[in-house]
Amino acid sequence: MTRGNSTINIGLMGLGTVGGGVAASLLDNAEAIKQKTGRMVRLKRALVRDLSRPRDPSLPTELLTTNPEDILSDPDLDIVVEMMGGDSPAGEYLERAIAAGKHVVTANKEVMSRRGPSLLALAQERRVNLLFEASAGGGIPIVGCLMSQLLANDISSIRSIINGTTNYILTRMAREQTPFADALAEAQAHGYAEADPTNDIEGIDAAYKLSVLGSLAFHRPIPHHLVYTEGISRLAPEDFRYAAELGYAIKSLAIAVAEPDGAVRARVHPALVPDNHLLANVDGVYNAIEVTGDLCGQIILHGQGAGRDATTSAVMGDVLGIVRALANSDGPPPLPDTPGMAQDGGLDVLAHPIDELSSAYYMRLTCADQAGVLAQIAQILGDGNISIATVIQKDTDPGSGTAQLVITTYPSREADVQSALRAVSELGVVVSVNNLIRIEE
Amino acid sequence: MTRGNSTINIGLMGLGTVGGGVAASLLDNAEAIKQKTGRMVRLKRALVRDLSRPRDPSLPTELLTTNPEDILSDPDLDIVVEMMGGDSPAGEYLERAIAAGKHVVTANKEVMSRRGPSLLALAQERRVNLLFEASAGGGIPIVGCLMSQLLANDISSIRSIINGTTNYILTRMAREQTPFADALAEAQAHGYAEADPTNDIEGIDAAYKLSVLGSLAFHRPIPHHLVYTEGISRLAPEDFRYAAELGYAIKSLAIAVAEPDGAVRARVHPALVPDNHLLANVDGVYNAIEVTGDLCGQIILHGQGAGRDATTSAVMGDVLGIVRALANSDGPPPLPDTPGMAQDGGLDVLAHPIDELSSAYYMRLTCADQAGVLAQIAQILGDGNISIATVIQKDTDPGSGTAQLVITTYPSREADVQSALRAVSELGVVVSVNNLIRIEE
Repeated sequence: MTRGNSTINIGLMGLGTVGGGVAASLLDNAEAIKQKTGRMVRLKRALVRDLSRPRDPSLPTELLTTNPEDILSDPDLDIVVEMMGGDSPAGEYLERAIAAGKHVVTANKEVMSRRGPSLLALAQERRVNLLFEASAGGGIPIVGCLMSQLLANDISSIRSIINGTTNYILTRMAREQTPFADALAEAQAHGYAEADPTNDIEGIDAAYKLSVLGSLAFHRPIPHHLVYTEGISRLAPEDFRYAAELGYAIKSLAIAVAEPDGAVRARVHPALVPDNHLLANVDGVYNAIEVTGDLCGQIILHGQGAGRDATTSAVMGDVLGIVRALANSDGPPPLPDTPGMAQDGGLDVLAHPIDELSSAYYMRLTCADQAGVLAQIAQILGDGNISIATVIQKDTDPGSGTAQLVITTYPSREADVQSALRAVSELGVVVSVNNLIRIEE
Repeated sequence: MTRGNSTINIGLMGLGTVGGGVAASLLDNAEAIKQKTGRMVRLKRALVRDLSRPRDPSLPTELLTTNPEDILSDPDLDIVVEMMGGDSPAGEYLERAIAAGKHVVTANKEVMSRRGPSLLALAQERRVNLLFEASAGGGIPIVGCLMSQLLANDISSIRSIINGTTNYILTRMAREQTPFADALAEAQAHGYAEADPTNDIEGIDAAYKLSVLGSLAFHRPIPHHLVYTEGISRLAPEDFRYAAELGYAIKSLAIAVAEPDGAVRARVHPALVPDNHLLANVDGVYNAIEVTGDLCGQIILHGQGAGRDATTSAVMGDVLGIVRALANSDGPPPLPDTPGMAQDGGLDVLAHPIDELSSAYYMRLTCADQAGVLAQIAQILGDGNISIATVIQKDTDPGSGTAQLVITTYPSREADVQSALRAVSELGVVVSVNNLIRIEE
């Protein structure tokens, strides 16, 4: 471990788009980093899969290796930065680096969601830093805020837009009335969505990130598999049009709420958000996170949730924090933060978070265009203790003799709404139940 | 200095509204703080001006003192929290506490603006923390973000709404067309403005805060007296009406920009902000700060910029950070951050930041309602190299034979605009130049 005024040696694992950004920042800004932290940094080694692939920046070949041991077993490295992504082998590499007494920085949401508590406990034991600002929210400094600046708060909820791919698609659908499949194809053409978009559009990526943020906010592990997820593929352009008429935007929200009994309910799904709320105005690939605490009230952080530069900002912020601490320390290494994630408050995370949810709802049905239809539907909803707030009948189609019926409800129990909708769908006058979307006020 | 598992002793200087919030948080949350940081804290002593004043929370009388020596000379105190406000004696007390090797936390924008560099240098020398999250942005975690999470960025600009009093007044004027004097009186009645509102409405409070934020962002001291300030008292309800027609809100912005030559231009003044920008939608006593960096892009933090709870959130975040570091340390005390404020990049802060500004402008004139008026004005503007973007003639008053002329320009040099407007004001057909407001796109 390097001390005094000597250079801090850094090993980088993964040199893809964002890893390349981190490498460029380390190589190009050594002087600025010294001014900001008091110490020189040196990118000593970078792990790649394929030595022959052309890269930007083009690194001196002696820096590149395909052998992880060249990083994990190098006693000269002070900091290991993991930019490989995926649970394995990245998780094992991080564990080995920490066990070897190296400070580590990772952008890996999946590893932090799956192994965060055990890795943080190991880091605490080995007295090294494990920092992961880039693992949720990209360039938005939310992880550090939850760990430090907002730590005094008793946090009651997080509501966030933390998947840029989804938000890009929804923004296109809302603005141009683009069907889902076309908006997805556009996102893929722009490089905002992957060839297999499942992780993004089904809410899995957001669930990992929410797991990380929720664990920090609520001081207990929030396993990603206990996050309820619902994708965006059922949304249709007309949902955006009707929502707009009612004064709402449709966003995919990642929400974690502390229930009155202390349990946490975590969920990712499309939601109607009032037009005048800042979250309704987060457009394109931007992300935003709203945190509500007993002291801070409502705080919203807005910025770029992904991309090479924004992610590099977060990763390098972590790296510089460690370098600065090493520069200021003549004794033992700087000490780890103790994010809540590593603690276990012993309180529940709700395994079935959605059935008992109380929420207002938007529902869209295709019905026969005839008298008495609404009465039949209203009867079923009423029997299920569901109060109707508004009804709009729209887009009557004389050809098929059908119309679109859009109903919003007052807050009701999710299980009641689901069960009433099943009954509604069996009515002879109902052609289809097209959508059910929760409303977040 | 306390080590190991023993309790961390805290002295509090100032027990006003916010100081009382910090005291309540320390007294009520000792157990939660221990869970979050690993150590117990104890409020050992609180400095007050008047022992007999009733307080919320009511503190045990033995905690209260009117003698600052009971805090500054107590070797048992680990952390001193300064909540007195004002430059003196708070500044001297902070200096003495740091010199005595105590960690200090302050919410004092004036002290951090005037004495930040020297206090931070002293803290560095004495190897203690000087933290000041609450000195700018209230409950919004911007200070820590600039110091840590965003540190890797080369920051090009800060644009912010950081005075809640002004923003409350402007929001009232915009929404209800309330004249300035009435909106100010309302703010005073609600306790949002002081009996002497000068510091808020003339931009002095915002200049202190901008000095703190700019120093951190640009890594050099930004003295508050080099911040150009312009108050909001000249704004009239019709300015908000005309701005709205043009697609803008009017906000008092605190702006610091790194010029291409590396100098910093810092200014506080009313500005037209496009309706669709998040800053245009920051209402009432809320604050927001936009930071633009080379890596992070545009980040916006939105939240409560003042008030007992929000400020307590920031102060207690700092306190908990120090407690956590002490809890994790068996050796020397935790080491100070090195915020840019304490460094001197040797680059200029522009002493006359406004003359050479390039900006688009909104101007409102009262003119004779007759043919040829616009031609005369346009001639003068054209001679001054000022290109007109839009012209609206409004509110013709047959009684006085006058009309309101609202002109917006393309980006022009401030000195040219000021000089052209002086010439315009001397035209016989111009009754008055009512307002000149910069436009921030």
